[in-house]
Amino acid sequence: MSVTFVMSTPGSTNRPPTLQWVGAVEGHLELLDQRKLPLAVEMLKIETVEQLWEAIRTLAVRGAPAIGVAAGYGIVLAARTVPPTSQSSVVIELLNRTAAYLKSSRPTAVNLGWAVDRMVQAAIKDRGIGVRQLQQRLLHEAHAIKAEDTAMCLAIGKFGAPLVKPNRGVLTHCNAGALATSDHGTALSVLYEARRQGVPFTVFVDETRPLLQGARLTAWELAASGVDCTLICDNMAGVVLQQKKIGLVIVGADRIAANGDTANKIGTYSVAILARAHDVPFVVAAPTSTFDLSIKSGAEIPIEERAGEEIAEGFGKRTAPAGIKTFNPAFDVTPAELITAIVTDRGVISPVKEANVRAMVGQETRGA
Amino acid sequence: MSVTFVMSTPGSTNRPPTLQWVGAVEGHLELLDQRKLPLAVEMLKIETVEQLWEAIRTLAVRGAPAIGVAAGYGIVLAARTVPPTSQSSVVIELLNRTAAYLKSSRPTAVNLGWAVDRMVQAAIKDRGIGVRQLQQRLLHEAHAIKAEDTAMCLAIGKFGAPLVKPNRGVLTHCNAGALATSDHGTALSVLYEARRQGVPFTVFVDETRPLLQGARLTAWELAASGVDCTLICDNMAGVVLQQKKIGLVIVGADRIAANGDTANKIGTYSVAILARAHDVPFVVAAPTSTFDLSIKSGAEIPIEERAGEEIAEGFGKRTAPAGIKTFNPAFDVTPAELITAIVTDRGVISPVKEANVRAMVGQETRGA
Repeated sequence: MSVTFVMSTPGSTNRPPTLQWVGAVEGHLELLDQRKLPLAVEMLKIETVEQLWEAIRTLAVRGAPAIGVAAGYGIVLAARTVPPTSQSSVVIELLNRTAAYLKSSRPTAVNLGWAVDRMVQAAIKDRGIGVRQLQQRLLHEAHAIKAEDTAMCLAIGKFGAPLVKPNRGVLTHCNAGALATSDHGTALSVLYEARRQGVPFTVFVDETRPLLQGARLTAWELAASGVDCTLICDNMAGVVLQQKKIGLVIVGADRIAANGDTANKIGTYSVAILARAHDVPFVVAAPTSTFDLSIKSGAEIPIEERAGEEIAEGFGKRTAPAGIKTFNPAFDVTPAELITAIVTDRGVISPVKEANVRAMVGQETRGA
Repeated sequence: MSVTFVMSTPGSTNRPPTLQWVGAVEGHLELLDQRKLPLAVEMLKIETVEQLWEAIRTLAVRGAPAIGVAAGYGIVLAARTVPPTSQSSVVIELLNRTAAYLKSSRPTAVNLGWAVDRMVQAAIKDRGIGVRQLQQRLLHEAHAIKAEDTAMCLAIGKFGAPLVKPNRGVLTHCNAGALATSDHGTALSVLYEARRQGVPFTVFVDETRPLLQGARLTAWELAASGVDCTLICDNMAGVVLQQKKIGLVIVGADRIAANGDTANKIGTYSVAILARAHDVPFVVAAPTSTFDLSIKSGAEIPIEERAGEEIAEGFGKRTAPAGIKTFNPAFDVTPAELITAIVTDRGVISPVKEANVRAMVGQETRGA
């Protein structure tokens, strides 16, 4: 894939970038500290690999694409510590160690591993050019990863925008926005593009228990971007649909099987059922890299269970009896038959069935 | 209706009574302080009408039937302050003032008004018997209101218990339990009776945002009563149903229209849609006094909206951006066609349609 650097779309936004490299190789990485949102908007200055590892581990930066982009810059942070006269083998060895170290910060984040491996491969390929040049080369590669991610988000926005119905509500769940990517997001990129095109609409945001990504992140991101939105509890989605406020439900995806079955944040499946019951289109927005064609259907996707404290003490305060049993699946699987369309960076898959998925995504599972 | 005093069903429960009068006329009312649950189990001693007013207003006691029973005892608290030599007209005047005062603690609580009016009517009817005897008579009437409520709950349990399928899960939403009534509850009475009959089952409890009645009250009540239960977030009901864990969904009701449309805690409608999508029976349990036959359908039931802070600051901590818009309906309306059966204290209405509702409930809207 050839690299093109894409400018952010214009718009009256007060939203700082999710992450950006400031300056040349001697510069630093800035992350919008998502642990502080929505109560404080603070940029985190990252100058060492150790600082980045901690930032990823503690969710200062989150969302698979955003983590991948940040990790790419992590390799730059390592490479620039090498003295200019070092042997290239010393540099490569350091980068390999750094890649393994960064992967350990979020072991299940696929994009993270992909990004650092790509950075190390770039270094190996150009190992003969000298340390100073190699550092420049790696910063260029990290910028390219970011630019490709942004381009992918914008492409999703462009393909999806026609699905936003004028003067209707849009319902979304969790955060598939600019905060989860280098910019623009996936599901929310569709909304930003529709807004850029002048389509009038409003957004209902599920708060998304237990971790409240909707309340903390999506509501903040939309409001800071000047998009009209209303926060609801997850169990209010039904009445909002019943009152005919909604013309589109749009969500992101964690993993999509070959038949279109989609794993996403817990609660997505319920929203899909509700959308179907009210004849409202239920749309998934995700880059082609989210597809895993090695998995035939959602039945092969294991459902991770997380600690019960997220439910019983989710707000720094105990809200359930001591010792109560909990069930806390991190995500659920929405079967393809409930999904009206999947918007990718290459186009829209609809109806969602294996032949159409394979035609759009091919055998390739990563857009690199 | 003749008054029968009904004993609580036996069982290995650690749950103190929701409310009880201790001693004779000189005694006091004890309330289980629901503001402190689930973190502390404390009984609140109520010796004056003013203390009761405050307890009702601040939700130390909640649930329409429980409030009604407590308010009945409130009239006793007033009557016993009258000197034995007072004129009966003075007593009646005091009781009328007390009734109006207690109604102001929760203006929309129908059972509260009904109970205090019944108490005053009893006093008027027997006004000639002397102050000491009248105080006794009123305590007897308050006990009768409580006993009738308990009998009603037990009848609902008896009629509903056959709906609980052995070795399957039951899903419930909000709190329609012993804590909302004098004892046993409505929806939960069905579960307590099934348990008494030795039916093995487990309960999944929706936490019920925004006010977490499921997490705070239902999970506590079931656990304290020795019923196996698991707490989930509201948006996890879909995956629990998808995994075929559930054989019955059962909830309470705030108000039921003549055609069976049912207003209940926000989120109930979503659960009903999910139950239908998974072919699981969706059952409402409510006394005949919950029916309002003057209302033809749920379209005539106004949906109360509550303060947005319940969503944005629901746990004593801000979890959403400042100034964010919210939509916070207190309840929703589930159409009759989604309701498999309504379990009342007189029997089971199924299929749920106007003719069957009227046949069971008649023109009477209160079981007195």
